[in-house]
Amino acid sequence: MPTLTLPVFTTEGGATLYEVPVAYETWGTLDADKRNVLVVCHALTGNAHVDEWWGPFLGPGRPFDTDRFFVICLNIAESPYGSISALSTNPATGQPYGASLPPFTIRDTVALHKAALDQLGIQQIKLAFGGSMGGMQVLEWSFYGDFVEALAIVAVGGRHSPWCIGWSEAQRQAIYADPNWNDGHYAPDVPPAAGLAAARMMGMVSYRSHDSFVERFRRDRMDDQPGQPFSIESYLRYQGQKLVDRFDANCYVDLTLQMDTHDVARGRGAYADVLRAITQPTLIMGIDSDILYPLTEQKELANHLPHAEFRLLTSLHGHDAFLIEFDQMCDALQPWMDRHVMPTLPSPVAAY
Amino acid sequence: MPTLTLPVFTTEGGATLYEVPVAYETWGTLDADKRNVLVVCHALTGNAHVDEWWGPFLGPGRPFDTDRFFVICLNIAESPYGSISALSTNPATGQPYGASLPPFTIRDTVALHKAALDQLGIQQIKLAFGGSMGGMQVLEWSFYGDFVEALAIVAVGGRHSPWCIGWSEAQRQAIYADPNWNDGHYAPDVPPAAGLAAARMMGMVSYRSHDSFVERFRRDRMDDQPGQPFSIESYLRYQGQKLVDRFDANCYVDLTLQMDTHDVARGRGAYADVLRAITQPTLIMGIDSDILYPLTEQKELANHLPHAEFRLLTSLHGHDAFLIEFDQMCDALQPWMDRHVMPTLPSPVAAY
Repeated sequence: MPTLTLPVFTTEGGATLYEVPVAYETWGTLDADKRNVLVVCHALTGNAHVDEWWGPFLGPGRPFDTDRFFVICLNIAESPYGSISALSTNPATGQPYGASLPPFTIRDTVALHKAALDQLGIQQIKLAFGGSMGGMQVLEWSFYGDFVEALAIVAVGGRHSPWCIGWSEAQRQAIYADPNWNDGHYAPDVPPAAGLAAARMMGMVSYRSHDSFVERFRRDRMDDQPGQPFSIESYLRYQGQKLVDRFDANCYVDLTLQMDTHDVARGRGAYADVLRAITQPTLIMGIDSDILYPLTEQKELANHLPHAEFRLLTSLHGHDAFLIEFDQMCDALQPWMDRHVMPTLPSPVAAY
Repeated sequence: MPTLTLPVFTTEGGATLYEVPVAYETWGTLDADKRNVLVVCHALTGNAHVDEWWGPFLGPGRPFDTDRFFVICLNIAESPYGSISALSTNPATGQPYGASLPPFTIRDTVALHKAALDQLGIQQIKLAFGGSMGGMQVLEWSFYGDFVEALAIVAVGGRHSPWCIGWSEAQRQAIYADPNWNDGHYAPDVPPAAGLAAARMMGMVSYRSHDSFVERFRRDRMDDQPGQPFSIESYLRYQGQKLVDRFDANCYVDLTLQMDTHDVARGRGAYADVLRAITQPTLIMGIDSDILYPLTEQKELANHLPHAEFRLLTSLHGHDAFLIEFDQMCDALQPWMDRHVMPTLPSPVAAY
């Protein structure tokens, strides 16, 4: 995966870091003006490989039309997938930052990505699009003025609610309860695996819905045997272990804290006023069964953003529908892009 | 608190226990026929002190009319508040059962309570009423035929959904991640407190709703200071510690597993058929903001039980509304009791 290095980056909190890596993936061709850019923002445990999780959006003739757009997804700060995180080497010590990494806000991640785009010479973003934590970044991109022409978000609000902070904090406490946590000072081969797995299990339930679990798992037990675990228990344990195998506990804690910083109005004025000042055309999609970021949050955004359109996604699958309901999202996204994004594009890049 | 001892009790799983305590509280006077009985069933971390959590129902002229009813609430099996649990002394060893207590089902709790009522000479229950895990017991009481004349439940379904089992299991895993857990073998003064607190925090979020937290906590921080924890975080930590101070981790794990056994149809036939065979007049209340036991569950019951009435409770407070919205519950309960329960009562007990 391509990775660039920023010589220096200073966080909102005032911490200055050196030799800061930013990993990213791209699709399509950057045109001569470097303005045909579509930024895709990934969520909590995601990565820059858009093809792995939003593949149906990507390709010729699709919303992320690789014949016309230069599509880029940058790995977020504090994620273990290539950008600056607890796993990165602190050049001052030659050791991984671990628990010593300064905290990042959503604004920091977007500022980091802006610096990376600057290094790549990019002059303008035609569309920033993301769901969940990715949508938080999109909303922060709006504050870069003319640099960002249009926004699309799904399953997020303008600020992280106390409800979501509560879910985050309960998950963190499960990690903290693991003796291997040790305030984030653990050896790579002795991670707080049980705590991280429990946190993930909690998360995995909150991402879905009552009805989706009823449909999928019923009260079935493993091997159809009384006394065996319920299928849902087995599924969650598997999902917990799967995250332990691919993620780092410091990164998980850091990222959940980063989400908790999300508030477009922080330091900018009254919430409604700040929303009203977001002037880009914005497509806002919400999921009817999302318990984490319920429709009230998207409707609040749609009511305040002056150039917003709201589209309802109907799904059994709760918050995770933003990674599932491709047809509905495409049906909302494509005509909206045809009106608000495509006309601003230069002519298609000649493929010869 | 009064406690009786059953000489012997055998669980559904076939475990036989001796000298089994059942703690209970009563209000009002048992009439000569011993048929003016109203059984109140308590929930997960509740206890037999109905006056502490459903006080507004209790007293002369109220639904739990102590001039007419003998109101009794029995502490459930596996709860730390007086009935048989991990904290009870195993007469065979003289030591607390701890992790060696055989598992109890909801049916076991109700069978235990039936045996206790038998020992008290009670001939009939006019009404069994409970919410959440208490409602699970009420539904099981229906299978005692003429012994139970009417049922009222709030915020529960006919079987514990995979959604709720998922929440339970994630909470248990947080406890298991605590090094002091040790498969339930811990000294009373070295409990898995951090894990139990994390589990409780998870539970406390799931019992409420997005909108209730927004209304109460917003994104306020402690002492209104940046860098301080969010108020919701502080609240949840306090709630976690509060449960640690009053509850036992084995009991918590055991009780969540007991809830997971809830399925009125288990071994009795097809679910819909089993529900249709519940012939008592039944009042079913559901809460519009309950994410754990959503209205679909109560409506499913109301659609199948032949003598059911459904009443919607409107509340910001999610599942916990069953411990909050007294006025709405009284408004539903009293007229329904006037039609279905009061006419079956003997004349008021003469007070002198």
